[in-house]
Parts: sequence; structure tokens; C-alpha cells
Amino acid sequence: MIVILKKNPDQQQLDRLRSWLEERHIAIHPTVGVNQTIWGLVGDTSHLDINLIASLDIVDDVKRVQEPYKNANRKFHPADTVVKVGSTTVGGGSLTLIAGPCSVESEEQICTIAQQVKASGATMLRGGAFKPRTSPYSFQGLRNEGIRLLSIAKKVTGLPIVTEIMDASQLDCFDDVDVIQVGARNMQNFELLKVLGELRKPILLKRGLSATYEELLMSAEYIMAGGNENVILCERGVRTFETYTRNTMDVTAVPVLKQLSHLPVLVDPSHAAGKYKLVPPLAKAALAAGADGLIIEVHNDPEHALCDGPQSLRPEVFDKLAGDLRAIHELVHR
Amino acid sequence: MIVILKKNPDQQQLDRLRSWLEERHIAIHPTVGVNQTIWGLVGDTSHLDINLIASLDIVDDVKRVQEPYKNANRKFHPADTVVKVGSTTVGGGSLTLIAGPCSVESEEQICTIAQQVKASGATMLRGGAFKPRTSPYSFQGLRNEGIRLLSIAKKVTGLPIVTEIMDASQLDCFDDVDVIQVGARNMQNFELLKVLGELRKPILLKRGLSATYEELLMSAEYIMAGGNENVILCERGVRTFETYTRNTMDVTAVPVLKQLSHLPVLVDPSHAAGKYKLVPPLAKAALAAGADGLIIEVHNDPEHALCDGPQSLRPEVFDKLAGDLRAIHELVHR
Amino acid sequence: MIVILKKNPDQQQLDRLRSWLEERHIAIHPTVGVNQTIWGLVGDTSHLDINLIASLDIVDDVKRVQEPYKNANRKFHPADTVVKVGSTTVGGGSLTLIAGPCSVESEEQICTIAQQVKASGATMLRGGAFKPRTSPYSFQGLRNEGIRLLSIAKKVTGLPIVTEIMDASQLDCFDDVDVIQVGARNMQNFELLKVLGELRKPILLKRGLSATYEELLMSAEYIMAGGNENVILCERGVRTFETYTRNTMDVTAVPVLKQLSHLPVLVDPSHAAGKYKLVPPLAKAALAAGADGLIIEVHNDPEHALCDGPQSLRPEVFDKLAGDLRAIHELVHR
Amino acid sequence: MIVILKKNPDQQQLDRLRSWLEERHIAIHPTVGVNQTIWGLVGDTSHLDINLIASLDIVDDVKRVQEPYKNANRKFHPADTVVKVGSTTVGGGSLTLIAGPCSVESEEQICTIAQQVKASGATMLRGGAFKPRTSPYSFQGLRNEGIRLLSIAKKVTGLPIVTEIMDASQLDCFDDVDVIQVGARNMQNFELLKVLGELRKPILLKRGLSATYEELLMSAEYIMAGGNENVILCERGVRTFETYTRNTMDVTAVPVLKQLSHLPVLVDPSHAAGKYKLVPPLAKAALAAGADGLIIEVHNDPEHALCDGPQSLRPEVFDKLAGDLRAIHELVHR
Repeated sequence: MIVILKKNPDQQQLDRLRSWLEERHIAIHPTVGVNQTIWGLVGDTSHLDINLIASLDIVDDVKRVQEPYKNANRKFHPADTVVKVGSTTVGGGSLTLIAGPCSVESEEQICTIAQQVKASGATMLRGGAFKPRTSPYSFQGLRNEGIRLLSIAKKVTGLPIVTEIMDASQLDCFDDVDVIQVGARNMQNFELLKVLGELRKPILLKRGLSATYEELLMSAEYIMAGGNENVILCERGVRTFETYTRNTMDVTAVPVLKQLSHLPVLVDPSHAAGKYKLVPPLAKAALAAGADGLIIEVHNDPEHALCDGPQSLRPEVFDKLAGDLRAIHELVHR
Repeated sequence: MIVILKKNPDQQQLDRLRSWLEERHIAIHPTVGVNQTIWGLVGDTSHLDINLIASLDIVDDVKRVQEPYKNANRKFHPADTVVKVGSTTVGGGSLTLIAGPCSVESEEQICTIAQQVKASGATMLRGGAFKPRTSPYSFQGLRNEGIRLLSIAKKVTGLPIVTEIMDASQLDCFDDVDVIQVGARNMQNFELLKVLGELRKPILLKRGLSATYEELLMSAEYIMAGGNENVILCERGVRTFETYTRNTMDVTAVPVLKQLSHLPVLVDPSHAAGKYKLVPPLAKAALAAGADGLIIEVHNDPEHALCDGPQSLRPEVFDKLAGDLRAIHELVHR
Repeated sequence: MIVILKKNPDQQQLDRLRSWLEERHIAIHPTVGVNQTIWGLVGDTSHLDINLIASLDIVDDVKRVQEPYKNANRKFHPADTVVKVGSTTVGGGSLTLIAGPCSVESEEQICTIAQQVKASGATMLRGGAFKPRTSPYSFQGLRNEGIRLLSIAKKVTGLPIVTEIMDASQLDCFDDVDVIQVGARNMQNFELLKVLGELRKPILLKRGLSATYEELLMSAEYIMAGGNENVILCERGVRTFETYTRNTMDVTAVPVLKQLSHLPVLVDPSHAAGKYKLVPPLAKAALAAGADGLIIEVHNDPEHALCDGPQSLRPEVFDKLAGDLRAIHELVHR
Repeated sequence: MIVILKKNPDQQQLDRLRSWLEERHIAIHPTVGVNQTIWGLVGDTSHLDINLIASLDIVDDVKRVQEPYKNANRKFHPADTVVKVGSTTVGGGSLTLIAGPCSVESEEQICTIAQQVKASGATMLRGGAFKPRTSPYSFQGLRNEGIRLLSIAKKVTGLPIVTEIMDASQLDCFDDVDVIQVGARNMQNFELLKVLGELRKPILLKRGLSATYEELLMSAEYIMAGGNENVILCERGVRTFETYTRNTMDVTAVPVLKQLSHLPVLVDPSHAAGKYKLVPPLAKAALAAGADGLIIEVHNDPEHALCDGPQSLRPEVFDKLAGDLRAIHELVHR
């Protein structure tokens, strides 16, 4: 940690800061410049409150020089983490394709889609049971019943299932779920993260709408600090000033997260764009940037003759896309 | 709702959309332009999924013309909501000053501050017991014990107490709490909002770091849909590209929220700025813009000889500020 | 255009708006709903000031249903524009690779790099002569002399040259320049755009740091309205809250701009990321998303023994990357 | 400047960096920590390219500890700058009220408004002659003729006039203009800033839509580096994800800019909000936060019976507001 002192600081306050640091076994290496004095702090600074020091009258600025996350940090764990999910793996060079509908609606719906996406090469099945909805008047998902239907589709196809948890109290329903998803809006629901840290089941952690890379990694750290190292990171678009798409997919997150951390990184182009026509180019871009896989909404809708969901691909479009994705993945990893 | 059709739409798909809408008792008023045909939809469109329609091949765009919130909407409730908290009120022309430390640390600390801020004119006491912290390695608050200490300070001073809940499972500890705060990171923790909607206790709902005005009001709607009409909105800074301050206080939120909704609006300048020197000018700005009050961190720290919290005022600074704030409030409401 | 009226509007104001519109040969198609009346406006609404109407007391909101750009709009020009630059072309399925140093420094430097990037497959040479710098104390480029050196490199290699203009008064120096670049900070320098519209030379128009897709296309429209149809769009990163990278490359801009407009779309991953290690994954992502090509900084630095520029690749890294890029481009266009 | 080295850096590269710095007369003060070595650089680091050093393989990060602006920096000029404009002044405790229409339309219009706003207490007259418009099809202002009409209004009322320049080539028309405005879109039009730096006339510099505080001050520095110290800063809203208002007025800019710099700070609430009903609360908030004054659009429109501009106040509303503003200003400065 580096402390930049103001010019002509009050000597008494300076002495107080010095003793306060020394009590905490922090050594001070001063650099005296023409306009400014800098203190380099040596020792375990991870427990120092940077804001506390920054607030002192004699201090101009404080800068941290070490990442505040450890378990998720590639510096301390150089090798890629590979997360096992049933007989498939996430990370380490394999291509993960998670596909399925936005919401689980019926046994027939979920089983049909599951079979279709499996045939196209999906490695896991996704489907919303507990649905976070902006409006209290919108359909909130089939909840427990949705998970029961996912389990049936899992039995039928053998695909591991991924679904979202919204509150720790729902955990009882998740016994048969293979990967528990934490949604963007819950990325900093720290009480939930702590509970998930006590499990050993894989957690798919989605980046919050305005979360920095460091904050996403700190949320992963919450889970890992509890002992659960099976964390899969997921970029799903951040909020910007552009309103043409629902969010702006941050493809740079892929190489950056893989550089800073050893955890696998997936991308969800469906939620990022909110428009199904943008899903294929964005999915290809994510893999070209080095993502370990994708989560894609696929919807088969024989009931409503009307239309697909706004961000969902039809199974035949997914089938073609999956082929393209395998080719790109191969090319990037050759 | 308005549906903008593509030029030369497929007739069969058009007929399907028409029947689908008519099944839902929606009348269609077409406007045929040179380059585009627009359908005005008349009827109860609040249950139509705007994204679903937008995803159709024949549709160029869909625009909602009504706000999706009802209980929180000033159009349907023109008069200001006034929330009663103990013997004080929030909204309706009174000035609410909530003050107290970032974290409750000890009985002596919280009682001393409570007495000081009361003497300066604070109408409620705040203090963190359950603390949402970005890092799992940071102090997570005194939790239950913190609330017990707040209760003591309440008994001593008579000030109603405000503190944050992080998970519905903590609710048992909140019996003696007068106003339950929902933090910015939990603004879209919908399961928590539903539980709070079943109470009749005032809820202080903080705006999320990248939440729109409409999303904040939809989260208020979640609570109100459950029957709890005692919702107090709170602006606490949004995330922008500027890094000099922790967040950017959006003072425009004050007149806009008061125009769109009948709920009271408070502002938290301490968390928005993250630098205590900015608190006085921002607090004054918030009141000048018409806010119903403020939440301000005040810290009295005889133990650590070192320093105040980075965003906390000393009691004597708060005392002076409170005087200025009363003058501005009077001037705005004269 | 759609006008959403307030409930119970003042009849006199309503009549005034009606006559004002009728004077402008706009027909009104009303849709009367339960809570709101909507007017669909039919006629040439492109000259109506949307903000003017929105400001009326009787109006709740106004929504445009047509894009405000015409020349740049794919709706009116379905076929891809292909821009000819010397013997090469931009758009229409070819792969454009523009490479070269951040700044032109000397004849030897620019000629060496030009030969190297040509050997690796670059189709044009870039190099900064007039340099927009945030600080008045930073090196402002070799200016006229820089363009003279670029011309020499052009003669030596046959590569067309691309360089940035900062002010219309510099135009005299650009006679030998093949593509004139408008930088992100000048995207809305409308006086400059007007002057460039009078030329017939290709213009490479970079997206502003916080410009929407529509604003970028409106700036293209400025140039095209003057008669210059040779506009090449360029995504170079937008400003977000993330500070790890200089800007956030918006890969979604690629498919969206190609859908909305017939103009070619390039991407500049070097400036977006600001870190050369991120350039290869981002360059691949851009092509996978369908970009017509890339602008990449390549720096050969035998003079300063020290280092490359922060966002520049070494020629040997560019050489390897160019091969990967050709493979991705082929795969996307197969 | 602080250089944070990677763990186990290559010794040869380290030596090269050391000699490179020493050649530039920079002394190195190392701080050796457990996981990292930090170099504090002492000497004139203002000419070192921070990005260049950051790009080295052996470097983890580089942090600047000094602001890159000097002339605009309060550290080197503690006293407030007071800019003289005719017989009035900007800064130093006086209240500046600049009012007038968005665009100059006719002699009658501008003279009538000028007299009205003068009667209400405005200290300067504003009016757009050269208009930056997003669309090439929108009215581009009366240009030279507009400035001629402003001059007439100046003669009639004695009010100094403020109007925007869009290109250095227009400077000839600005002889009678008292304050030259640089619009948000031109804040980083460095060629224009350089030309304005050669004048001694006051420059009103508006903050760009996504400019940081530091970037605004660096643009002021461009003007001041040329010798023109009469720079007035102006906050006019930044771009965020919120679409209800045109931009988001950043009221925090006021106390921060006044702390970092000695230059006067004005606020333009009309352009920030884009909705005239929001102008009064935002104007009051800006003054309460310590702004030296405001620029407000006032529109008197007897010709178009229809309506005011969307962001313009009527003279009678401005008159009432001006009274409130004087009261707030007095209260803040008492």
C-alpha cells in the first residue's frame, strides 16, 4: 500500500499515523519528493482500511498495490481451475455449451428442448425455475415445480442441470441441481454467497450489471473463502448509456478475468443483448476472445403459435450456431 | 402500448399477432404512415410481455406508454405519502435528519453519538449492525448485538432507529427497529422485498448503484404490492465513469422521483461521495432540490485516536451543518 | 412520430397543437385508451422538433418511430457499401487490416514498420501525424512532417495511408492521404464533418467515447449529406465504470451497426483496451462478430532500447495474429 | 510517480528501465515488500509517459501521485480566480446569472428577452448563434447574423454577451462577444483550445458528456498554457444509463472542481435536464453546493403561439427563480 502525504503535513498527526501503522506491524519506507512525500507500507496490509487512511487530513491519497482477493487470484494459483459437473468439465480447454429455455414451463417443453439441445452438442441444460422479475406482476417462475421438471429432463437426457437460486431458503430444492446459478442482481448478496461457500457444488456466478472485474472476483472470493472452490465466472453484459441493446456485453472481461484469475469464464450473450438476432455474432465473439463456453437461451414453442422469447434462439438456429462455435473454439485453441 | 410494424410485414404473421392480441381483449388502432404502420393497443396492456412482441419478425419496435408501477405512481395517488416513525414523520414538508455512525461499535459509542446528533436536531439514529462488505475479510458488523446496542441508544435518547437488513432470515432481530433499510446492493433482492411487503413497518429503500428511476419505483412496488405502503425512497449515488468520488450523487433523482411518485425521498450524501469533506455541500444541494431529508454519517471516535471514518462527519461539523440545512429547508418550503 | 397526451388535456392547448401540426401537413391518427390518448403523426415528421413537442404541458411523452438518418440507413440502401481505397477495398466481404505505429517518428521508423506489416498482410498503413493529446505538455505529433514521412512509406510499400485530421485548416496537408481519420473526440465536431462531406475521399469515422449507435450514424450522415458517401465506421471502445482497461470495447456495435447501416465497420482494439496483451483476443472477437477489419497499432522500436508503446504489438506478434485473423475471417464468411 | 514491479522481474530489463529513468534525471527510491517491490520516482516526472512504463513486462502498474495540470491547480494558486467580464465579475463570491434563449432568432426576440432577464437580475445574456446540432437536417443557427443581433441586445441592455464558438475559423465574428463558450462536444477539440489560449478574452469551458474532472481541468490547462487565464468552468450534465433526463447533472462537480482548482465554476441545469420543469430545483441545488452561478435558458415566444423550448423557462418563471437563487446564494455565503 502506498500513502501519498500532503505537503507540509501536521507533525503530530504524522506521528500518530506512524505509531498506528507500527502497532499493526507495518514498516514505512518513505520517498521524499519535491512536492510530495510517499510512504510505501510493507507488511500484511490486507487488513488495513484504505478509506480510513485516505480520510486523514495529512493524506492526499492512498493506493493499494495488491489485489484484495487471494483464493481467486491467478498469482497464487497459476494453473487453470477445471470444474467437474457430472461427467463433463468446465474450463481447461473444453467447450461448455449450456442451453435451454428462459423459463421452465412444462415437462413436455423442457424435455423436448433438452433433447434438441443435447443433439446439437449442448453439454448442460439450463432453465429458470425461480425467476427474478423487475415487476411484482410478472410471472415469477414455477419455482419448486420447475426444478422437479428440470430433474425429469436430466433423467431423460443425462444432461447436468443449471438453475438460479434467489434466496438461501430455497436451497432445499436444489439437491438434484448440478450447478447453482447466482444471478447478476444477487452478485453482492453476501449472505447468500456465504451459504453457497459452505457447499461443494459448482456455483455459476454472474457479473452484476455495474460490477467491476475486481468486485466480481471479490464475490467469487466470498464463496471460496467458505471452502467452495468450484466457482464459474459469467459475463452477461453491463449497463451503459446505450439503449439499443438491453445491456452491453463486455467481451474484454473474458481475457482480463482469465488473466487475473484461474477460474473458468463463461459468457451469456442472450441476456446481454436481449435480442436473439445478436446472439450468434456475440457468441462467436466470446469464444474468439477465449471464453470457456456459453450460456444460450433456446426456446421451442409449439404451444404459443406466436413467437419465440425475445432473446431465445429456435433449436434449428442453435444447431447451426453450435457447429460454428465448435469451429471457432478449435481455431482459438489449436 | 404502441407496436411499430416493419414495412411490408408477412400477412400470416400479422394475422397471428392480431388474433393473439384480440384473445387478450386488446383492441388495435392502426395508424398507417408512408414508411411505417403503427398499432396503438387499447385495453389492459400491463400483462403483455413487451419483449415478446418486440422479438417478432414483423415488429420493428414496441413502446410502452404507461408506467409499469401503480401503487407507487403519483398519477393514481396525487397526495404526498407521509410515513409515521414513532412520533416523527417522513415526507409532507417536514425535515428528516437521520444521523449516526457507519457501524455500531459499542454501547458507549452509539449512545454518545445518539445524544450528540439528537442535540444537533437529528430526528432518527442510524447505525450499521449487519454490514454488507465487498470483501469477506472485512469486519461484517456486530449483527444481532449491534441491534441490541441500537435499542439501548433508542431508550436513552428516544430517537427512532434505522438499520439495514441483508437477508429475510435476520428479521427476528428487527422487532425494536423503527425503519428497516434495504441497501443499494439488495434493491433487486426480490425475495427480500416480498417478505418486507408483508410487514407494516417503514422500509427505507436505497437506489441500486446502476438502477434507473423506474427500477427503483418497481422495487418500491414489490413492497407495496404486498400491502406495505410505508416506503421511503433514498438516493445514494450511482456508478459513473468518474473515480474521484466513490459514486456520483444524482441530485436530479429528487425532483424526478417526487414528480413520478408520492413517496418521500431522502438522500445519503455520505455514501455517494465517500469523502466527508463533500458531505456538507452535497447535503445542502439535496435539500435545495427538494429532498424530504438526509441520512448522514456522524462519527465520534475517542477510542481510535487516529481518525474519523472516511465519509463521516465529526459531531461538531454535523451540528453546524444541521443549522445550515434547516435554513435551506425553510427557504425551499417557504 | 407518436405523441402521448396527458389525461384530461387542456382543450385550447390541444387545438393549438393540432393546428400547428396541420400547418406542417402532418395528419393525426388518435388512439383513445382508458388512461391515455395517443396521436400517431403521419407525414414527413423528420423536421419536427421532438423536444419542442415533448415540452408541452398537455404532452406526456413523444416517441420517434423512424431513424433520423437516411443516407446511412440500410432500410433505404440494402446493399453493403464497399469503399475503394487505392487498389484495396473496405467492406463487402474483404478483410481490412490497417496497421502501423501510434505516432510517426522518423522516415526509418515508419518505412521499416510499413514493410513489416505489409509482409504480414496489412492492407493499409496507419500512423499519427497530428496527435490529439489530453495534456498540452505531451508530444503533439510531427504534424505536416509526419504526413510527409507517411507519403514516403506509401511510395516504398504501395500501402495506402490512413491518418487523423484534427481541424479543417490542416486539410492542405492531406492531399496524399488515402483515408482521413476523424478521431473519437471529434466525432461531433460538426464543422469538420461538413468540410469532409465536400470531399470524395474515404473518411474513417471513429465512435465517440460515449456516443450512441444513432449518434455515430448521425455523424456519418453529416458527411454523407454533403455528398461524400465513402464513410467507414470504427468502434474504438466506450467509457464505462471499469477502470482496468482504458475503455470498454463494444463488440455488439459490430452486428448492430451492420444491421442498421450499409457502411463498413472496423474495430480498433488497441485504443479500446490500452494494453497490448489484450489486443489479440479482442481483435479476434471483433472479426468473429462480423467486423470488416481492424486497425491495430504495431510498433518497431530499435531506437528506444526501452520498450514498445503500451498498446502496440511488436511486428512478430502482429505477424502471428494476422494469420489467426485471416482464419477467423474465413470461418465467419465461409 | 510510483512504479509497482512484478515479482521476480527480469534483471536485464530492470537495469534498462533504471538507466532510462536516470538519463531523465529521475531518482529511484525502492520499497521492497514481501510480494512486491515499489519504486518511488523523484524528480520532474511530468514528462514521463505513464503508459509507456506501464507497458513494460516487468511492471505491474504505475500510479501518478501528482495532478498533471499546473496552471489550473489550486495547489499552486490557492486564491480564487475572479474573471472580469465588462463591469461584472465571475467567481470570488459574486452570483453570476447568465440567461437567454437557446437560439437567437430575431432582433425583437433577443432584445425583448435581454430586457426581461436583465430586469430579473441576470448579469449576462446568452444566445446560440453557431449551433452544434446532432442532425445535419436541423437548424444550424443564424451564425454571423446571430452574433450581430446579440450585439444589438448588448447595446440596448448593457449586458455582456456569451455565445458558443464551434471552429477557430469563426473567431472573426466574435470581436464584440464578451465570453466565448466552448461546448461540451468541443471540450477536447485541442486545436480550438490552443487558439483560444492565445486570446485574453474569458472562455466558458463546458464539461464534455463523459469527461472526468481531470480531463476538464486538462482542457482548461490547454487554454491557460497559451497564456489565457480567464477560464470559467461549467458543469452541464454527464451521460449515464438514466434516460428519463437528457443527461445527469453532476452536482458533486461543483465542490470538487472548486477544491482542485481556483477557477470559477458555473452550472447549466437547462441542458443537463432537458426538461424545463427540472430547472428550478437543479439550479437551487447547484448554488447550494457552492457554484459561482448558473446559465439558464429563458425563452419568450410570442411568434410561435405553440410553446417554449423544452428546456427553457418563461421569463416570469425565471423572475421568480432568480429571487430564490439570490436567497440561496446569500445563505450559502453568509
